[in-house]
Amino acid sequence: MSLNTSLRDAISANLAQTVADYKDFHRTPELSMQETQTAATIRSTLEALGLETHTFGGTGIVSVIENGEGPVVAYRADTDGLPIAEDTGYDYASTAEGTLPDGSTTKVMHGCGHDTHITVGLYVARYLVEHKDLWSGSVVMIFQPGEETGEGARAMLDDGLWNSIVRPEVIYGQHVWPGKAGHIYVAKETAMAMSDCLKVTVRGKQAHGSQPESSIDPIVLGAYMITRLQSIVSREISGRDMAVVTVGTFHGGLKENIIPDSAEFKLNIRTFNEEVREVVLNRVERVIRAEAQASGAPEPIIEEMYRFPRCYNDPAATDQFLDVVGAELGEEQVHLDRAVTGSEDFGAFGDDIDVPYVYWFFGGYSPAKFDGDEPPAGNHSPFFAPDDVETTLKTGIRAGLSAVLSTVGK
Amino acid sequence: MSLNTSLRDAISANLAQTVADYKDFHRTPELSMQETQTAATIRSTLEALGLETHTFGGTGIVSVIENGEGPVVAYRADTDGLPIAEDTGYDYASTAEGTLPDGSTTKVMHGCGHDTHITVGLYVARYLVEHKDLWSGSVVMIFQPGEETGEGARAMLDDGLWNSIVRPEVIYGQHVWPGKAGHIYVAKETAMAMSDCLKVTVRGKQAHGSQPESSIDPIVLGAYMITRLQSIVSREISGRDMAVVTVGTFHGGLKENIIPDSAEFKLNIRTFNEEVREVVLNRVERVIRAEAQASGAPEPIIEEMYRFPRCYNDPAATDQFLDVVGAELGEEQVHLDRAVTGSEDFGAFGDDIDVPYVYWFFGGYSPAKFDGDEPPAGNHSPFFAPDDVETTLKTGIRAGLSAVLSTVGK
Amino acid sequence: MSLNTSLRDAISANLAQTVADYKDFHRTPELSMQETQTAATIRSTLEALGLETHTFGGTGIVSVIENGEGPVVAYRADTDGLPIAEDTGYDYASTAEGTLPDGSTTKVMHGCGHDTHITVGLYVARYLVEHKDLWSGSVVMIFQPGEETGEGARAMLDDGLWNSIVRPEVIYGQHVWPGKAGHIYVAKETAMAMSDCLKVTVRGKQAHGSQPESSIDPIVLGAYMITRLQSIVSREISGRDMAVVTVGTFHGGLKENIIPDSAEFKLNIRTFNEEVREVVLNRVERVIRAEAQASGAPEPIIEEMYRFPRCYNDPAATDQFLDVVGAELGEEQVHLDRAVTGSEDFGAFGDDIDVPYVYWFFGGYSPAKFDGDEPPAGNHSPFFAPDDVETTLKTGIRAGLSAVLSTVGK
Amino acid sequence: MSLNTSLRDAISANLAQTVADYKDFHRTPELSMQETQTAATIRSTLEALGLETHTFGGTGIVSVIENGEGPVVAYRADTDGLPIAEDTGYDYASTAEGTLPDGSTTKVMHGCGHDTHITVGLYVARYLVEHKDLWSGSVVMIFQPGEETGEGARAMLDDGLWNSIVRPEVIYGQHVWPGKAGHIYVAKETAMAMSDCLKVTVRGKQAHGSQPESSIDPIVLGAYMITRLQSIVSREISGRDMAVVTVGTFHGGLKENIIPDSAEFKLNIRTFNEEVREVVLNRVERVIRAEAQASGAPEPIIEEMYRFPRCYNDPAATDQFLDVVGAELGEEQVHLDRAVTGSEDFGAFGDDIDVPYVYWFFGGYSPAKFDGDEPPAGNHSPFFAPDDVETTLKTGIRAGLSAVLSTVGK
Repeated sequence: MSLNTSLRDAISANLAQTVADYKDFHRTPELSMQETQTAATIRSTLEALGLETHTFGGTGIVSVIENGEGPVVAYRADTDGLPIAEDTGYDYASTAEGTLPDGSTTKVMHGCGHDTHITVGLYVARYLVEHKDLWSGSVVMIFQPGEETGEGARAMLDDGLWNSIVRPEVIYGQHVWPGKAGHIYVAKETAMAMSDCLKVTVRGKQAHGSQPESSIDPIVLGAYMITRLQSIVSREISGRDMAVVTVGTFHGGLKENIIPDSAEFKLNIRTFNEEVREVVLNRVERVIRAEAQASGAPEPIIEEMYRFPRCYNDPAATDQFLDVVGAELGEEQVHLDRAVTGSEDFGAFGDDIDVPYVYWFFGGYSPAKFDGDEPPAGNHSPFFAPDDVETTLKTGIRAGLSAVLSTVGK
Repeated sequence: MSLNTSLRDAISANLAQTVADYKDFHRTPELSMQETQTAATIRSTLEALGLETHTFGGTGIVSVIENGEGPVVAYRADTDGLPIAEDTGYDYASTAEGTLPDGSTTKVMHGCGHDTHITVGLYVARYLVEHKDLWSGSVVMIFQPGEETGEGARAMLDDGLWNSIVRPEVIYGQHVWPGKAGHIYVAKETAMAMSDCLKVTVRGKQAHGSQPESSIDPIVLGAYMITRLQSIVSREISGRDMAVVTVGTFHGGLKENIIPDSAEFKLNIRTFNEEVREVVLNRVERVIRAEAQASGAPEPIIEEMYRFPRCYNDPAATDQFLDVVGAELGEEQVHLDRAVTGSEDFGAFGDDIDVPYVYWFFGGYSPAKFDGDEPPAGNHSPFFAPDDVETTLKTGIRAGLSAVLSTVGK
Repeated sequence: MSLNTSLRDAISANLAQTVADYKDFHRTPELSMQETQTAATIRSTLEALGLETHTFGGTGIVSVIENGEGPVVAYRADTDGLPIAEDTGYDYASTAEGTLPDGSTTKVMHGCGHDTHITVGLYVARYLVEHKDLWSGSVVMIFQPGEETGEGARAMLDDGLWNSIVRPEVIYGQHVWPGKAGHIYVAKETAMAMSDCLKVTVRGKQAHGSQPESSIDPIVLGAYMITRLQSIVSREISGRDMAVVTVGTFHGGLKENIIPDSAEFKLNIRTFNEEVREVVLNRVERVIRAEAQASGAPEPIIEEMYRFPRCYNDPAATDQFLDVVGAELGEEQVHLDRAVTGSEDFGAFGDDIDVPYVYWFFGGYSPAKFDGDEPPAGNHSPFFAPDDVETTLKTGIRAGLSAVLSTVGK
Repeated sequence: MSLNTSLRDAISANLAQTVADYKDFHRTPELSMQETQTAATIRSTLEALGLETHTFGGTGIVSVIENGEGPVVAYRADTDGLPIAEDTGYDYASTAEGTLPDGSTTKVMHGCGHDTHITVGLYVARYLVEHKDLWSGSVVMIFQPGEETGEGARAMLDDGLWNSIVRPEVIYGQHVWPGKAGHIYVAKETAMAMSDCLKVTVRGKQAHGSQPESSIDPIVLGAYMITRLQSIVSREISGRDMAVVTVGTFHGGLKENIIPDSAEFKLNIRTFNEEVREVVLNRVERVIRAEAQASGAPEPIIEEMYRFPRCYNDPAATDQFLDVVGAELGEEQVHLDRAVTGSEDFGAFGDDIDVPYVYWFFGGYSPAKFDGDEPPAGNHSPFFAPDDVETTLKTGIRAGLSAVLSTVGK
């Protein structure tokens, strides 16, 4: 049940423009929950297709493509960039800047490839609008902001998304990653990890750098906390289970000869199931509190910043997706893969209304990139961007359309 | 050989104004090498005494009080504040702000008590001008900026201080600290530590927080470096020698779910002699480079930021100081003490022209402050400020005048 | 295709004696490669069944049960105990002692349950001998010593096992573990981890405990090595892969006030595939050598003690086993499980002659043991021993016979 | 007030025999509190001088040399060896063995030079007996066992030493160390550190090495404790104070693939004053208990093994000693030195009856040994032994006699 020939021809015929649109998005990333220009472009593009647009959660845009009787499906793309200084060397590399919540300025980059998601999503919408003869029913197109901070899906839901928009029977979404361009990778059941983010304020006691005995040194204490945290994954979790504990930031001290009063670090925790998650969270807190005691320090402050839910691919919907996308792209291009340690708030759209969903990955690199000793750069690297943009985008569009049409297609 | 009665009376009579002047300086601290308002006030005060002023190193002010034939002595006071948010609760507490070299804004505080040094220095000058009958010769009054960053003495010397100003035969200086108000503390020979400051750039490899295996994690690496550095003092230096290794700052990462490309920390090292200094510097570099190797990381970058020389009190000049200040304040108020681990660039003025010098401490707290379990706050603490301001300043002035007059007094 | 009724009846009828035999083995464990009494008992038991016995690798015993034309299968049981002081409280608990290779004395315990393996193996042999009407072909019964040290299988193979004994077309083996008595657990393809054991000699420099500056402290260095090794699993291996790095021993120093010249620790590494294994071994060596450099210590000595190969269950043979044992014990008693992180030298028998094999686990605890907060004690714990011995042994015998008869049964 | 010529001549004339006696003691060291052969030799030597001997504390020997009216002084030598395998290469190197309290066998060495102490002590006694014309009064010669374990002085005192032996008005003692042969080193007031020894039992939970999640790993926990303890000296004690924290032993685990139930380490702590001692002991306990909490481990067991008191040289007695030994050996051979970080139970003899005492060091190496990059081996090293035995012993005898005769000499 591969795509109709006229649809395939349209995808190929428009590819130069598709790539050009992608490069525009690539040049102009915006930070999470600040995607105002990006949202404006999405809105005007959808409206140019004759669609009505709705705004949820500030910079989230939704259109429903209606086409008579039939099932309702949803397709979601996320739209935000990251505080990374791009280092790809492409002539369309980003030079954008943004302002972080703490007021500091940063370079911004589509370092997670959401520019491909926007582009693919807008072309999926266009082809559905232009080929209404091939399907009937409704398709809800969701352009979600703030995925990187775990805020966007929640903001759209809290803003009443499913109260005013028709509820689908299945939801699809996809993500570019450092796989081979032209290939699709999907996991059944657990697809992506849960993620918990904590902020830890290490409290010490300030003193002159020459008099550590008058201080409680929060930098040394923080360093002991971080080295001690390594033993959670190495000693307290079974080799058969998955846990990743990353300290992504550490900040303390203004001057080399003053031992500061406090320091701060932020933790990101990935797990595949609730039981392991509870163990890790419990151990992280235990280690941090005990290390503070070892220093005779005041109680550290541990705050939950946000959490991502598990992304659980419905088995039946995944099997159906495997069938149709295998038929479209060729069996050998479609891989049933293990769950990944990355996280997504995509699952929230389905979990919120108890609707099944499928989330998959599409590759972004030409095969030659995999020949060397070093694998190609991964998401969140300053070097991450598809090198074979045409194949990458075409494959994303064909996979997205195949999935949507597997439900609403005639 | 205590101070003349009329001089003592003058000190007491002016005490209310002395305290008021101190509070003005306390309210308006400025960061190192940015002491423009402070320098302007010093300049106008000296000029109001009829003295000519000279500027060295941008914000360093010098006046020579000439009074006929006789010896030449110098007296030095330092003038800069610190990037600390004051927390003393005094109604004259600082609310000043300043801009650090990296462009960020910070609260500023006279957290090391240099406001007492300026006040004492200006009144020493005043009494010398007003009591020329008591002495003959010349006194060089040096108001030095940028002591906290080790820049100020060097800047004044490099700007030609001793080429244009008459060279003294001895130099005096003093520092307030958490001792008892009314008391003087001085060490013979080694008086203060050498200080070396290093900046370490920990280089890693950026990756998504869920994929540490694709990264070289510079925060975990930095934490291992910092914990490993502890063993230098604990294992590689004799218990009979002195070494302090403080990591005063550690900064890395922008976002909890991105393992950053690099992190940075700054080290401050204190030692009393060149041999131990060499061992510590060598070991610090060895540990940092080896830890980078343990992570398979690129070579870290270790840069010397600045260093403070040793402060070596001339034995004969110190004995003379002990005699005169003991006579002035009472033997039991004057303490021959061990060397302190703090550092100063005061010594550079004498070392540069091979002239002997004496540097001592005067206490800032009333006796009751020492009764509790907790000692009173030390220098560089947000809580540091004299509570018995009158006694503190009066003692500083009497000690300073005693020292100067022990050489130029009639 | 479940077991013949007369065979089942025999198993039940003999159960009291089976349990008594088990308890005898439990009381009298011997250390690896020293199983002389155990081997003698096995030999006499097999000979009492009319079988000829062959000795390989010192304490390995083999008998071939010949029964006319037909396929040849092998069944392997391992026989050695561990240097653990039993703490089960059972009246048949071991009080045995043994001598370790370094000459020291230790309590010995069947802490890994090999006593059940011997008992089950001998009864499998007995029933095959007593029920020759049910099958035809040959069954090679292998009683292997020295599994715990990875020496036994290699010793039997090096002693010419497959040169003098008829080669089978499939090999079976099983292990008791802390699952439910009556249940069978098996993984397809990778079944157990590879294991690498290293001995590390940390070289330092001896000195008086009060003069660490004259020493290179191998205990502090070893401690830094061990804490630093934690980051290999936590940071350098994907959460989707498996690696366990255990430091099982650390020994250094004779007297608290002498910093010793050296210390020694032993590492055990578990991985599921060669690629991850290479990364871990490389990183372990990198960390150990770099930490020695951080201490300015002589090169540490890293020696490979032994390694266990992967245990890879042939997919077709595993499917066949799942069918027959599911038919015998009930589908719901048989679990297709994930690979375990433990290791075995069982795989060497098949790998050596390129013959497929299947290795599975049988549970040792009654269901009530799983109700509390604490899971029941695992292998190598001083508390490990089946509490429902009857069910445990009966299930082992039924599973073993089912597997063997699935190939040679009529 | 140097030694009488006939006494000096006697010392020189007997030097070959003195050296031969030293080598005999060097060859035959015995472990602490097991010095039975050594005590027998001392006893017979003293009795051959016509002295009565008394035994205290098992292997402690005392003789009082009586010589009419006059002051009473005491001289003490310690007699025990160490569990070190000698590596000096001398033809008189020890090959002795001994049995440690835990039953294990060890090589034994006079690795702290007590063989020189015995030899010097016996010759001091001999010369006092043979030259009674030069002095009057009484000299108490104390040969003390078990100095290395802090047991010996206490054992002799508890055995009633000062109840049955005449009490002296001053006590002298000395120790060989890696200074220059012919030179004497002495500190006034605090002369040697206090020493506290602790035994720590790290309690965990045993499990198979492949299943750390079922364990509480006491080796990793112990390693974290040891690395964390480094920060006490580096961060919690002023650079101006002295503290040494040495972990001299660590033992855990029998088999690399079993995570053990517990591990044990022993700590030795050196400090110069009670205040710092209390801080260190408090912090050591705090760190150890907090680290156990970080692992979720049972409370570790911290036991005091023994402690050494401070060795405090009476200022007046030290001044007198400096005068007489300077006169005897030459001013430039006698050094007023800083306190050392080593410890001694010598002070207990005087502290017990409130009698002043002086303890000094005499060098053991020829000057050429100090020319290279490496200092000569220190006490407790397998390479420690005087290379210029003649000068070493002669200087010890002259210093000992000078001290004794400064009080009882005519």
